[in-house]
Amino acid sequence: MAFETKATIANFGGKLLKLQHQSSSTGTPMDVNLFLPPAAVSGSKVPVLIYLSGLTCTPQNCTEKGFFQAHAARKNIALVWPDTSPRGANLPGETDSWDFGAGAGFYVDATREPWSKHYRMETYIASELPAALFAAYPDALDPERVSITGHSMGGHGALTLYLKNPGKYRSVSAFAPIANPSQCPWGEKAFSGYLGAEDREAWKKHDATELVKGWAGKDIKALIDVGTGDNFYKQGQLLPENFDKAVKEAGVKGLELRYQPDYDHSYFFMSTFAGDHVEHAAKYLFA
Amino acid sequence: MAFETKATIANFGGKLLKLQHQSSSTGTPMDVNLFLPPAAVSGSKVPVLIYLSGLTCTPQNCTEKGFFQAHAARKNIALVWPDTSPRGANLPGETDSWDFGAGAGFYVDATREPWSKHYRMETYIASELPAALFAAYPDALDPERVSITGHSMGGHGALTLYLKNPGKYRSVSAFAPIANPSQCPWGEKAFSGYLGAEDREAWKKHDATELVKGWAGKDIKALIDVGTGDNFYKQGQLLPENFDKAVKEAGVKGLELRYQPDYDHSYFFMSTFAGDHVEHAAKYLFA
Repeated sequence: MAFETKATIANFGGKLLKLQHQSSSTGTPMDVNLFLPPAAVSGSKVPVLIYLSGLTCTPQNCTEKGFFQAHAARKNIALVWPDTSPRGANLPGETDSWDFGAGAGFYVDATREPWSKHYRMETYIASELPAALFAAYPDALDPERVSITGHSMGGHGALTLYLKNPGKYRSVSAFAPIANPSQCPWGEKAFSGYLGAEDREAWKKHDATELVKGWAGKDIKALIDVGTGDNFYKQGQLLPENFDKAVKEAGVKGLELRYQPDYDHSYFFMSTFAGDHVEHAAKYLFA
Repeated sequence: MAFETKATIANFGGKLLKLQHQSSSTGTPMDVNLFLPPAAVSGSKVPVLIYLSGLTCTPQNCTEKGFFQAHAARKNIALVWPDTSPRGANLPGETDSWDFGAGAGFYVDATREPWSKHYRMETYIASELPAALFAAYPDALDPERVSITGHSMGGHGALTLYLKNPGKYRSVSAFAPIANPSQCPWGEKAFSGYLGAEDREAWKKHDATELVKGWAGKDIKALIDVGTGDNFYKQGQLLPENFDKAVKEAGVKGLELRYQPDYDHSYFFMSTFAGDHVEHAAKYLFA
């Protein structure tokens, strides 16, 4: 559906648009931020990098603290920051936990009641939102050139949507992704609630480490950064080593996994390496 | 007094330190953030850029949203983000307004009760804090090379401390500064409270537009950016045109005042031009 523009903000020579639209996937209004780089403001069609946020975040957190605009402006790439769940669906228990329900949609289409009606973030992110944006900004956004990235839960989202949809995204990258959610507490809680505790086969369709075993594409175009000072990494919530092992065992090429000494899970980590991730996307978006 | 290190965070190849110390100027604990760029972490002494925040801010806002670190890391300049007032002095009415009292110290030493005991931000910023930092980090921070910058109320602070202390700072810059506080509602409220409503002569000692008339130094080394979409600029809270006129009438050279089309008063404005302000400081810090 059509977007309402809540704010237009000058930023790095481009325009930051704070948008809202009614989503048919989630049945709720959804906030989304869009950065149009200088070339798009001047009337050229530019490629798009979708950034998926982590647990608890709205579109604002990374827009304010991630520093992607500095690099996207230079490269003339549009940025899209979607929300992390429906808001205001008013389901029982929806706001009881910070790691389940509101702010924690996990980029899956829930199959279990009461979540299945509204918590359809996979369809929203992979289909509805980009289609709506390309329809609304046909002269600015190029539907043929899209890459995806994300942080933590959003890194899980970026990797799984990339692996489930060969050819849809030119490249993928992730900061501290939940790379094997079936095997970590965050993923177990989310998948039990959204997909059913007993249906572990269904979980595999939303787990990057499982998905890469059946990867149908050629090489993956993937950059992953993980900070060695990240407490969630140390607690076994991220498990990038499991993903790395699965990639190698599957004979898949093209993963660059970097462990960054001392970096934590915060936006100070992301802003430091945002430039590298925009460069990674640019390499394929402008190939 | 000695600093307690509340957090050490890897950021842009350097270290971000969240510090707290007991201030003798304010009689309260004061938070301050310090960014040590890569060269300082490696044992070299680096110059320092002090950033003064605007109304309502703590040291965290600009640390998270300003992206000065990206540029300061490249140039090997340390950054200091002080707080904007004492906290927890528990004075009557201290937290009633967002533009007076807590979060709104205006970088003056108050002369009026009950503020005069604790609200001594000029002494704190110009003397106590840098002395404490140079004592605590003698191998990292070079006391001979200091510049100052700031936003809004902090732009006022940067300009006035620079003009009151010729030679103390190598350069000054400001984002959307309150450049003539005696003539705007924010300044009138703050100066009335801290310095006395009747003592307008005292106000002049804390007003950049007045101070530049008696500037004793050579050229000023000043860069100022103001967004033309800034509502506070439009409302006459900033008055950079008054400062510009006073500079010209005084025959003072060295002011670069830029009006940035459409930019607002937010960190999206500051992050866009943070690099230019770090470059401006670097030109004099490494001269």
